[in-house]
Amino acid sequence: MRPLYFENGVLKLIDQTKLPTETHWHQCHTYQQVAEAIRDMIVRGAPAIGVTAAYGIAIGMNAFSETNKDLFFNELQHIAKVIKNTRPTAVNLFWAVDRVVNRAVENSDKSIDEIKKIILQEAQRMDREDVESNRKIGEFGNQLIHPKDTILTHCNAGSLATCDYGTALGVIRAAHEAGKEVQVFADETRPYLQGARLTAYELKEDGIPVTLICDNMAGHFMRIGEVNCCITGADRIAANGDTANKIGTYTLAVLAKENNIPFYIAAPVSTIDFQIQSGNEIVIEERNSREVTHIREHQLAPEGVKVRNPAFDVTPARYITAIITDRGILYPPFVESIKKLK
Amino acid sequence: MRPLYFENGVLKLIDQTKLPTETHWHQCHTYQQVAEAIRDMIVRGAPAIGVTAAYGIAIGMNAFSETNKDLFFNELQHIAKVIKNTRPTAVNLFWAVDRVVNRAVENSDKSIDEIKKIILQEAQRMDREDVESNRKIGEFGNQLIHPKDTILTHCNAGSLATCDYGTALGVIRAAHEAGKEVQVFADETRPYLQGARLTAYELKEDGIPVTLICDNMAGHFMRIGEVNCCITGADRIAANGDTANKIGTYTLAVLAKENNIPFYIAAPVSTIDFQIQSGNEIVIEERNSREVTHIREHQLAPEGVKVRNPAFDVTPARYITAIITDRGILYPPFVESIKKLK
Repeated sequence: MRPLYFENGVLKLIDQTKLPTETHWHQCHTYQQVAEAIRDMIVRGAPAIGVTAAYGIAIGMNAFSETNKDLFFNELQHIAKVIKNTRPTAVNLFWAVDRVVNRAVENSDKSIDEIKKIILQEAQRMDREDVESNRKIGEFGNQLIHPKDTILTHCNAGSLATCDYGTALGVIRAAHEAGKEVQVFADETRPYLQGARLTAYELKEDGIPVTLICDNMAGHFMRIGEVNCCITGADRIAANGDTANKIGTYTLAVLAKENNIPFYIAAPVSTIDFQIQSGNEIVIEERNSREVTHIREHQLAPEGVKVRNPAFDVTPARYITAIITDRGILYPPFVESIKKLK
Repeated sequence: MRPLYFENGVLKLIDQTKLPTETHWHQCHTYQQVAEAIRDMIVRGAPAIGVTAAYGIAIGMNAFSETNKDLFFNELQHIAKVIKNTRPTAVNLFWAVDRVVNRAVENSDKSIDEIKKIILQEAQRMDREDVESNRKIGEFGNQLIHPKDTILTHCNAGSLATCDYGTALGVIRAAHEAGKEVQVFADETRPYLQGARLTAYELKEDGIPVTLICDNMAGHFMRIGEVNCCITGADRIAANGDTANKIGTYTLAVLAKENNIPFYIAAPVSTIDFQIQSGNEIVIEERNSREVTHIREHQLAPEGVKVRNPAFDVTPARYITAIITDRGILYPPFVESIKKLK
């Protein structure tokens, strides 16, 4: 269930705002369309955003029709900036853009046509690597799962958030494939309902038993002993292990600690921002109030009510039992275990 | 903003499933209609359900047209049972029904017409007493609020959950009336959205600054220091202080404790169930999955997905800083402070 395909110069994104009731492939022919698709959450999930951004640069640079190499690199920097400005929290976006730009700069002695090809090849390599990296996260994470575990997850860190297989859901898929008979509680994840719309849909399609709950029910099920562990993805991990992820993740981590339930983060090493020392440095995106006050056209709240809508929160490292990466499982103290990956 | 009026033998309930976008008064002419209105959450909130139930008995017994007093009391027991069977968690329902039935039994030597009148008078007395009791809760609770406090509340424990003024919102109203410039974060309260639809609406109408958030955002705002205290209502309080309230309350209490924020329950003494020693004995109502999978006609989740939908959870007493009642503020150890009220 890949959320993106690049074919004949066009990036096709499954429109995640319309799932699961409608399956619509959104086509991006220009880098501006790619930037809009990221901003409007037609594509979402830190790893998927990263690869989408890389393809966006490839599409943008492919449209460059002049012969002056300085202008070519000016355009590259411009497009990189536009794409980076779409969403502020997920570090994979910045990582992916920088990786593509650096690859182009390294090859600046080549012809414009050759550099265009290198940019596209880099995007395609990142696409393949993301799937491989999720498989590895799944393999490592599976070691932490016991037969018949009930696993609680939040938001969607699945196939649809990546290039395939998923991070948190990759661990769950690996455990399922290993015959462990796991079950999943999926938080619906307000306001955007990624859990109800995407995670419940993905797992149901894969035949993995899933039960949908509202976000405010997770604590109740932990307290009465129905949850064995929690796994979520991540949008950015600081050098000390503090983790930004979908709003509500911090709450789950506190509840898990209070109920002696392990709380795991599953994410590729590209989600680690080695430049920041703690979660205090992470910018939290605040989104439009309409996401909270309306479901499509249906109004839920009184006209004109004031709304806060942070899309992410920061979970301090002390609440995290382990971070499952594509290069192994990290344990506290995370300052040490993360430093070794550098 | 009263949610119920009894006039000319008819109970009029503001249809809380349609607020705030539609103001519709639902009329109950029979006790069966009253029972349905409670079950379908046209009226909700523990104190409002209690008084509605009392009026339901008055309506049902007023329709009794025979002259045999044994049949009269048989009918009374039958109606009491039907009304008690509507919702299992809020103790005010059982308390109110028993109070009316006992009052009738105490007066069984009187004529049927006189007993009918006594039943109705008892329902009306409970209606008046509820408003007085909320005013007292407000007065006591106001002592715990500091000027410029930002108060987080969950669900709707306001005018609409009572006969007027509210319990948790009664405290907030009292602080506002005392000029304390309080502000409120209102959790939207999935799945039924009482916070978005009712609390935000009530407070906005009263000119009390309110900000609507999703349930999973409350922890984030506590962690970053934007919440000074939490206040919620209660559906049933055990003799040891364990409190059943709207699903999500337990989560807030854990988050409050973790962030050193006081967590208050506001409820009349009629919400205390002296018969049960702890929250383990409280039956938690599970409601229809459609409340989670749909908003009105709009489908949010994949067809046929499994859902759990507990309407309440239990907050162990150790997370509760104080219980604000109409007879004063109770502090831990609650086993002692509650016993004194008996």
